[in-house]
Amino acid sequence: MLTYSFENLGSDSLYEYLYKCIRSDILEGKIRAGEKLPSKRGFAKNLGVSVITVENAYAQLMAEGYLYSVPKSGYYVAEISRYLLTPKSQIGHDSSLFARMNREQTLASPDNVPDVPKELPAVVDLVSSRTDQNQFPFTLWARLMRLVLSEKQEELMIPAPGAGVFALRRAIAEYLLQYQGMNVTEDQIIIGAGTEYLYGLLIQLLGQDKKYALEDPGYVKMAKVYQSHLVSIAYIPMDEGGIQVDALRSSGADILHVSPSHHYPTGVTTPIGRRYELLGWANDSDDRYIIEDDYDCEFRLAGRPIPSLQSIDRLDKVIYMNTFTKSLASTIRISYMVLPKRLLARFQERLGFYACTVSNFEQYTLAEFIHKGYFEKHINRMRNYYRGKRDALLKAISQNPLSEKVHIHEADAGLHFLVQIDTALSDQELISRAAACGIRLSCLSQYYHASQEEPDSDPVNQMQEPIRHAVLVNYSGLENEKMPWLVQTLYQSWYGD
Amino acid sequence: MLTYSFENLGSDSLYEYLYKCIRSDILEGKIRAGEKLPSKRGFAKNLGVSVITVENAYAQLMAEGYLYSVPKSGYYVAEISRYLLTPKSQIGHDSSLFARMNREQTLASPDNVPDVPKELPAVVDLVSSRTDQNQFPFTLWARLMRLVLSEKQEELMIPAPGAGVFALRRAIAEYLLQYQGMNVTEDQIIIGAGTEYLYGLLIQLLGQDKKYALEDPGYVKMAKVYQSHLVSIAYIPMDEGGIQVDALRSSGADILHVSPSHHYPTGVTTPIGRRYELLGWANDSDDRYIIEDDYDCEFRLAGRPIPSLQSIDRLDKVIYMNTFTKSLASTIRISYMVLPKRLLARFQERLGFYACTVSNFEQYTLAEFIHKGYFEKHINRMRNYYRGKRDALLKAISQNPLSEKVHIHEADAGLHFLVQIDTALSDQELISRAAACGIRLSCLSQYYHASQEEPDSDPVNQMQEPIRHAVLVNYSGLENEKMPWLVQTLYQSWYGD
Repeated sequence: MLTYSFENLGSDSLYEYLYKCIRSDILEGKIRAGEKLPSKRGFAKNLGVSVITVENAYAQLMAEGYLYSVPKSGYYVAEISRYLLTPKSQIGHDSSLFARMNREQTLASPDNVPDVPKELPAVVDLVSSRTDQNQFPFTLWARLMRLVLSEKQEELMIPAPGAGVFALRRAIAEYLLQYQGMNVTEDQIIIGAGTEYLYGLLIQLLGQDKKYALEDPGYVKMAKVYQSHLVSIAYIPMDEGGIQVDALRSSGADILHVSPSHHYPTGVTTPIGRRYELLGWANDSDDRYIIEDDYDCEFRLAGRPIPSLQSIDRLDKVIYMNTFTKSLASTIRISYMVLPKRLLARFQERLGFYACTVSNFEQYTLAEFIHKGYFEKHINRMRNYYRGKRDALLKAISQNPLSEKVHIHEADAGLHFLVQIDTALSDQELISRAAACGIRLSCLSQYYHASQEEPDSDPVNQMQEPIRHAVLVNYSGLENEKMPWLVQTLYQSWYGD
Repeated sequence: MLTYSFENLGSDSLYEYLYKCIRSDILEGKIRAGEKLPSKRGFAKNLGVSVITVENAYAQLMAEGYLYSVPKSGYYVAEISRYLLTPKSQIGHDSSLFARMNREQTLASPDNVPDVPKELPAVVDLVSSRTDQNQFPFTLWARLMRLVLSEKQEELMIPAPGAGVFALRRAIAEYLLQYQGMNVTEDQIIIGAGTEYLYGLLIQLLGQDKKYALEDPGYVKMAKVYQSHLVSIAYIPMDEGGIQVDALRSSGADILHVSPSHHYPTGVTTPIGRRYELLGWANDSDDRYIIEDDYDCEFRLAGRPIPSLQSIDRLDKVIYMNTFTKSLASTIRISYMVLPKRLLARFQERLGFYACTVSNFEQYTLAEFIHKGYFEKHINRMRNYYRGKRDALLKAISQNPLSEKVHIHEADAGLHFLVQIDTALSDQELISRAAACGIRLSCLSQYYHASQEEPDSDPVNQMQEPIRHAVLVNYSGLENEKMPWLVQTLYQSWYGD
C-alpha cells in the first residue's frame, strides 16, 4: 500500500499535505493511470490519520481531475495527457489543474487528431450538469463590477431588505415580463444565495408538517434538501407528460415541486393539458401549492418557449423559482423565487426577519447586467452555442456504429438528453466500462428515489420499475473535439470484443 | 384620512408609488413632523390596495428615516431637519435619504451647536446593533476586489467546495491561530452567507428532534431562526455569570447556543469557571453540543481578550461561530463556523451536497483582506474608534443631570451597554416618551423570550421576572455631536415637567 510520512507537514493541514503527496506521485508517474488507490478506511488506518483526511484529499484530487471513482469499486488514477506533465516547479498549489488543462488544450488542439484518444485528456464527465464556465462573459462582468464599485458606493453600504435590493428585483421583474411573459411585481420577488437555500426558506414558509411531492425519477440534490429538513416526501411516478396526476392525488401531498419546462433527468416537457390538471389539483385545497423549478428554461433549443405554470396560474397557487447559477456561472450564487401574492403577508410575518443572503455588491452588478440587456444577449449566444454542441454530438453519434444501437430522447429541451442503449449489459456495467476509459456516466435508473427508500415506506412509491439502459448525457461541458473519441470509446467499451 | 390616486402609477409597483407620494408630502411639509399616519389596515381599505402594499411603503419610509413607529400606537412622521428639505428635483428615487443625511451632516456639522436639537436630524436609533457603515474601508476593499478580478480570473470560475474556497478557510484559520489562540484546521471551517443560514445548517446537522437551549433574555433574531425551524426550545435564565447551569441541566436540552464572550443584550461575560461548567454539561452526554456565537468578540474594549469556549474545549464539543457581517459591514454576507473534528464526517455525509452560499468573488476578496493583515488593522482601528464613541457618550451622560438617575452596566465588553434608570415610569412609557422626540429605544424586558411564550409552555421558562427600567444603548451608529442632545432630550422626556 502507498505510504507517506507526515514529518514534513509544515503549515499544511493533514489532508492538504496528503493531497500534495499523491498529486506529486501521479505527476511524476510513480502512480500510473488506471491504478487503483487504497480504500479510504484502509489508507487512513495505514497512515494513522482520520478517514475524513483521506476523503478530503481524494475529493480534492477528483475535483481537479487526477482521480475518478467507480461506484462500489474505488478510486482510480485518471489518464493525464503527456502535455500536462509540466515540470514540477510550475505546479503551484494555488493554481488548479483544470484551469491549466483548459488553457493548454486550446494551445495544443491544432496538433490533436480528434480520434486519437492518447492526445486528449482522459476525463470526460457526462454526469455534472454544470454550464460551460469558459463561456461566461467574464470581461463584461468585471467591467460592470468596476462600474458598480465606483458609482454605487453609497448604495453598497445600505443594508438590503430581506428580499434583496430593489434594483435587482426590478430588473428581474422587467426581464420576466419582457422575455417570459410573466407579470409580477417587485415585492413578489425574493433573492437568495442559491435555490437550495430558497427551498429551505419555502419549507419554513409552507410548513415542515406538510407533505412534499417530488418527481420520480428526479434531481437528486433537490430530494436531499427535503430529506435534510426531515419533511414527509411522496415520490410521484412520471410518464411522458410529466407527473402522473392520479398518483399525485392519491399521495396525500400538500406541496408539489416540479420542473414542467424541462424535467431532470428525463428531459420531459409537461404539455399544457397536464399543466392545467396540476393547477386544478392545487386548487382543490387551500393549503396546496406548486413550486415550479424553472432551472434551465432559458436553454430550450427548439420550438416556441413554453409558458410557465406561473404565467397561466389564475389562482395564485404557483411559486416560481429560477437561478443565475445555471444561466450565468455556478460560482455566482444568486437565485430568486416569485411568490404568489397570497403568500406575501405570511412571508413578511414569518420570514421577514431574515437578512438577504446575497451581498449588495453582486446584486447591483447583476441588476446592471440584466437591466442593460447583457443577460438576454448572453442567453441568446449561449443557446446558439449549446445548440451547436448538441448538433455536433448528435452528428458524431450518427457517424459511428453506436448509432445502430441507440435511440435519443428529448434532445430539444435543454442541456442534456437521454440515450436509450440496446444492450444486455446492466446499468452498472455500462457505467463501469465507461469509467475504465475515463468517462463518467450515469443512468436514469440511478435517479429513482422511491426504489432507494425503505421497501415499506409508502405504497405510492412501490408502483414503478426504473427504466434501464438509458444513459444521461449532460453535454454542456463537453468539448467538440472530444466527441468522436467519446462516441467511439463508448462503442468499443460496450460492444467491443 | 390621507388619500392618493394611483392613476399615474406608470412603471412603479403600487407600494413604490405610495412610498413616493408619502415621501413627497413629507418633504413638501404637507404632512408634518409628529403627525400620525393612518393605520395600515384602514389606509389600505381607503386606497383600495392590499395591506402589504401599505406595509411595504411604510417599511421603506422607516428604513430611510421618514417615519418612526411607536409600538401599540402607530406610525409617525419623523422630524426632518431644515437642511434636508432640498428641492424636489434633487431627490432621485435611487438615492437613499440616509446616505444623503450622512454626507450633509458632515458638511453641516461645523455650524451645528451640539445641544440645539433643531439643527440635528431627529432620528436616533439605539435599537439597531449595526456597526458604523461609514467606517468600512471601502477604498481598500474596492482595490482588493479589482485585484481579485484581474489576477484570479481562473479561480473565480472554479466551483468552490461546499465549505468555501480553500484560500479563505486558510486565511481564517491563520487569523484564529494568531489573534484568538485557536488552533483549527481548514477542513473544520465552513463558510456561509450569514450566521442565520449557518444556524439552519446546524439544525439539519445536529437534528431537528433535538432540544435547543437559548439564553433568556437573548438576541431576538436567533430565537426566531430556531422557532422558524420548529425545533423544541428551552429558554434558560441568565445571572451575572451567564447561563444558569442548574436550569440548563434540568431543561432536558441537547444543544446549547450561547455568547459567552459578550451576551446580547445584557453585556454579560461568562467567567472561566462557568465556562468549564458548561463544557462539563456538554460532556455528560454524547449528543450534547455547544454552539458558541462569538459575534462581536473583536470589539472587547478593555482588559485581556477572553479565551473562547472553543479554545479551552478538550472534548471536541464546541461549534464556534463568527461573522464578518458584524466586524466589517452588514452588506457583506460572510460568516463562518468551526466544527469540532468529531462532526466532520457527519457534516460531509449529511450536508456535503450543499453548494457554498457565498460567491467565489467575495470569498477571494475577503481572503486577501485577512491574509494581507488589513482585517487585523481594521479591527484595531475600529476598537479605538468605538472606545472613543463609548467614552464620549459616558462623558455626555456624566455631564448631564441624567447621571444622577442612572447606573451603567457592562460598558467594556462590546458595542452596547445597559443603563439602569431610576424611575417610576413603565418600560413602555420610557420608550414612547423617547419615541415622541424621535429617539428609538428598547428595554431589556423586551428581550425575554419565555415571558412572551404561552403561559404553560415549559416550567423552566416560568422562573424569572424580567428586569425593568434597563435601557439598551447600541452606540456604534451614534454620532458624537448628537450625544449631548440625546442625553438631554432623554432626561427631559423622562424627568421634565
